[in-house]
Amino acid sequence: MEKLLERNRSRILGDYFELLRFQSVGADPSRLGDCANCAAWIKNHIEKIPGFKAELFTSPRFPSAPPIVLAERPGEPGSPSMLFYGHYDVQPEDPVEAWETPPFEPVLKGGRVYCRGAQDDKGQWFAFLEGVRALVEEGKKLPTVKIILEGQEESGSTAVSALAGELAPRLRADVLAVCDTHAAADGRPSIVAGLRGVASCTVTLSGPAYDLHSGTHGGLAPNPAQGIAELAASLHDADGRIAVEGFYDEVSAPSAEELEAARADAIGEEAYARETGCRPVGGQAGLGMVERNSFMPTVEVNGIHGGYGGPGAKTVIPASAFMKLSMRLVPDQRAERTMDLLRAHLEKHVPRGMKMEISDVRPGAPGFRLPLSSPVFALARRVLAQIDPRGAGFQWDGASIPVVSVLAKATGAAPLLAGFGREEDHIHSPNESYGLDQFECAMEWGYCLTAALAAESR
Amino acid sequence: MEKLLERNRSRILGDYFELLRFQSVGADPSRLGDCANCAAWIKNHIEKIPGFKAELFTSPRFPSAPPIVLAERPGEPGSPSMLFYGHYDVQPEDPVEAWETPPFEPVLKGGRVYCRGAQDDKGQWFAFLEGVRALVEEGKKLPTVKIILEGQEESGSTAVSALAGELAPRLRADVLAVCDTHAAADGRPSIVAGLRGVASCTVTLSGPAYDLHSGTHGGLAPNPAQGIAELAASLHDADGRIAVEGFYDEVSAPSAEELEAARADAIGEEAYARETGCRPVGGQAGLGMVERNSFMPTVEVNGIHGGYGGPGAKTVIPASAFMKLSMRLVPDQRAERTMDLLRAHLEKHVPRGMKMEISDVRPGAPGFRLPLSSPVFALARRVLAQIDPRGAGFQWDGASIPVVSVLAKATGAAPLLAGFGREEDHIHSPNESYGLDQFECAMEWGYCLTAALAAESR
Repeated sequence: MEKLLERNRSRILGDYFELLRFQSVGADPSRLGDCANCAAWIKNHIEKIPGFKAELFTSPRFPSAPPIVLAERPGEPGSPSMLFYGHYDVQPEDPVEAWETPPFEPVLKGGRVYCRGAQDDKGQWFAFLEGVRALVEEGKKLPTVKIILEGQEESGSTAVSALAGELAPRLRADVLAVCDTHAAADGRPSIVAGLRGVASCTVTLSGPAYDLHSGTHGGLAPNPAQGIAELAASLHDADGRIAVEGFYDEVSAPSAEELEAARADAIGEEAYARETGCRPVGGQAGLGMVERNSFMPTVEVNGIHGGYGGPGAKTVIPASAFMKLSMRLVPDQRAERTMDLLRAHLEKHVPRGMKMEISDVRPGAPGFRLPLSSPVFALARRVLAQIDPRGAGFQWDGASIPVVSVLAKATGAAPLLAGFGREEDHIHSPNESYGLDQFECAMEWGYCLTAALAAESR
Repeated sequence: MEKLLERNRSRILGDYFELLRFQSVGADPSRLGDCANCAAWIKNHIEKIPGFKAELFTSPRFPSAPPIVLAERPGEPGSPSMLFYGHYDVQPEDPVEAWETPPFEPVLKGGRVYCRGAQDDKGQWFAFLEGVRALVEEGKKLPTVKIILEGQEESGSTAVSALAGELAPRLRADVLAVCDTHAAADGRPSIVAGLRGVASCTVTLSGPAYDLHSGTHGGLAPNPAQGIAELAASLHDADGRIAVEGFYDEVSAPSAEELEAARADAIGEEAYARETGCRPVGGQAGLGMVERNSFMPTVEVNGIHGGYGGPGAKTVIPASAFMKLSMRLVPDQRAERTMDLLRAHLEKHVPRGMKMEISDVRPGAPGFRLPLSSPVFALARRVLAQIDPRGAGFQWDGASIPVVSVLAKATGAAPLLAGFGREEDHIHSPNESYGLDQFECAMEWGYCLTAALAAESR
């Protein structure tokens, strides 16, 4: 197939770079303006595709939420309709000093574009929509295409999740397409049959009213830095199994077929160690990599901070310390209940002499898992075989896109997630990038999937 | 006794404030210039006292060490000579935002001077030397007085400790006086019969080569933030007893007389809770406060840091995490051996899949303890009873001044530590302060002790 990017490389890359320059860190209230500007740019960009009408949707219930971009292009009434979801918010860029090029100034180097959001998620949805645009520009038939792009995915999709019911009539579709995931380790396309859920909170311990001298007070004052360490350490047993009581009660095991399909495309230990610099010895000892990453939940310390951290020594007992916790959930763990179990564990393990505060609680959303026999998967496999003759595999992704469960339920659409991310993209890290080869795949996916839907009958 | 400060309040406070303005953070290489300027100011200040000659001592062995101020004033040959030690370096001022007044601009408020170093140690030694000066200005007899003021006490007195042998001939004295400790809880003067030793290091764990996405890698990658927590938690058992193998082997128990004297002046649980905002439930359960603070060692987490710490959530597995550890040692724990034991424990407990680096290792100095029958104590009690009719008590301080052991050994002098610090001074914390009433006590102590030594025969 002819390379879609080459048809209009200069215009497409120019637009891509403009999109990347918006510092749309949705989790940062001080960058709400950047998010709003980004949304406005996107609206205009979509409306340049013949047939699309777009709008910026806001709600008085969420006055500080970045605007949601909604768009629609009526198409073949007899074909399955597509709702395409993406997010234009990006991860924070810290630590800035670790970036080799500025985090919000895209640079093309060695066939890869380096910028925060180059892949996750701007690059992937942008390329997908360029594929749809290429189809439109050829004058081909399209199904009805609806688009929803939001600005809070990295921080829990709060507004979209709450507004899904209200928006549902406008967003009803047969297929919910998302381009925000990664290919198989060998580069073959990969259809996401399951995602884990996610939840998070901040836990703060305090003891003394102010920082204390650790000589004068050592042996007397309870130490919150020590305490937060003990609290974090209490979350797992020596084998890496989560020690929160009742945590595994609702976990539903995968079928033999799912395990086999997951293992077929999974990365091995050696390749993992080469890519990440560490052997995959996290999680529960005794379980295989695929079990631990796709089908088992996690409790993770994303950050732990207390006391002195500068050069040399400072002999202090800090007044407080905190940690950022998140959990990955699997079917059928309920999000609110699991957060309650975690909170109960933490309350039971508050170290002697300290007070605990749990804040920023986001029970999040549960995971989902679709059966392999789902009809939308058959269509997707046919289409993806056109893009890569090796054909597509399946993955049960360790990561989460909570809003997918919410939108699928509200709109009745079957989730179809396939993306072209790779480990070397370093999403959520400094020096994030996306290859133009990956960009081309995402364009072809957008083009071919949309064409295939138009050729189907509902 | 007439107030010494009032004899020359304006000049004395003016000089005190000048001294305080030097940002002499000895542990910060970028403030070496501030330390050198401070030392030069001190030399000039001492030379204004008739009879004193002062110099700035540096050594090619320690080119980056702040200069040492040495001074001497010949006195009565038949009387015990005094070597007075102090440090002009101060603790770092962070967190700056917690200060109500600028950390290096002294402010007199409610009879207290607020500034980093207002008490520890600038205020205390400065006032002591003003007391000596007052005696000189009266034309009274003095013993031979030697002065050594260094700029690295807060970071381990590296240069002075190493140079003590070389300097010993110049510094030989009968009494090593130090004004860097605190009064009893009820404000009575307190002679320090013992100090704990101190040692410190930094422990860093690393796992992945770069920060990882905690969904994609959760259950696979070892997490250094989790790991540093587990490592920190391994240092104590559930009762707060230090879990490092062999740690207590060399600990020498106090005598019944020492325990009784220590308890007589020690703060009680309620007063402690009122002052610090927390109950004194740190340290080993089942032991009394005095045992835990004066006669037992500690292993303390001064800081723990890894991963995300900003607002909201960031679902990352950080590439590395670290903690700052320090230990307080008691007689007869040897400093190097105890550090070796700690290192062995850490190496044994490195979490699966991670690498550990131990850096900034300072084995420090051991603690010391003088018998209550020491003759210098009898003289000190007589002198302190002049300053406070309630008389002096004894303390075995939980804090450390490692260089005291080193200097006492090198010079043959008997350590005599008495100071006028109070909990409300908040040393090592933001908003450090020193009351002018405390300042007056330290002046009187300098004056009366020096006069008493002149009246003694060797």
